[in-house]
Amino acid sequence: MTAYDPNNIFAKILAGDIPSVKLYEDDDTLAFMDVMPQAPGHLLVIPKTGSRNLLDADPAVLAKLIPVVQKLANAAKDAFDADGVYVAQFNEPAAGQTVFHLHFHVIPRHEGVPLKPHAGGMADVEMLKAQAEKIKAAL
Amino acid sequence: MTAYDPNNIFAKILAGDIPSVKLYEDDDTLAFMDVMPQAPGHLLVIPKTGSRNLLDADPAVLAKLIPVVQKLANAAKDAFDADGVYVAQFNEPAAGQTVFHLHFHVIPRHEGVPLKPHAGGMADVEMLKAQAEKIKAAL
Repeated sequence: MTAYDPNNIFAKILAGDIPSVKLYEDDDTLAFMDVMPQAPGHLLVIPKTGSRNLLDADPAVLAKLIPVVQKLANAAKDAFDADGVYVAQFNEPAAGQTVFHLHFHVIPRHEGVPLKPHAGGMADVEMLKAQAEKIKAAL
Repeated sequence: MTAYDPNNIFAKILAGDIPSVKLYEDDDTLAFMDVMPQAPGHLLVIPKTGSRNLLDADPAVLAKLIPVVQKLANAAKDAFDADGVYVAQFNEPAAGQTVFHLHFHVIPRHEGVPLKPHAGGMADVEMLKAQAEKIKAAL
């Protein structure tokens, strides 16, 4: 297991050194829009306590994180009138992990609409902000 | 939100009416091999308390479930000397859900080895039992 590197981009978002389009925040958790969305409303939920991924996380951190994943999944589904929600969590590059701070992907799904590739193109920030307003209104 | 249907196949596994290749069990949780694996070691973690999926689950149930997902993810990674682990949770058919009792997929990943399709062919039970022994030994 590689150690946690506090210079990852999500740690910088948590520190306020890099901007993000925020959706939800509490003492333990932050949720924000994925800047390379696979579908409209694609968001990420991360713990404020750093771990590389699920494998090395403190179980107590996970226990606080997953109800927030649930809350955001319901909000995203409602906000985008989605037919379903895909929740995914990647551990290590072989599983698709590209940022090494634990994160859950929450992606609204519509029947017959395929997902875009993971870590594809950057989205327009104004579009993400507009989507975030819809999700926040559904929280 | 459609209500929980207690006649789903995972509820029948929990009731002991349908066999499964078990990996781990505690008062709240069961883990067993997926009979339609996308990769060797593909397993499922479910709560004993029924909910259709993540969206309608009791947050307290989720808080107990996710540390078990973590435990099994580490064991599966070790057992198969995997490079990573993919954790996925599908809500509603549009997101790929085929059994309507909350479950997390835990799938060991190896560099350059693509996953088989979700809900593809049935695996040989003896092979699953042999894989399960490796995972249990790593728990």
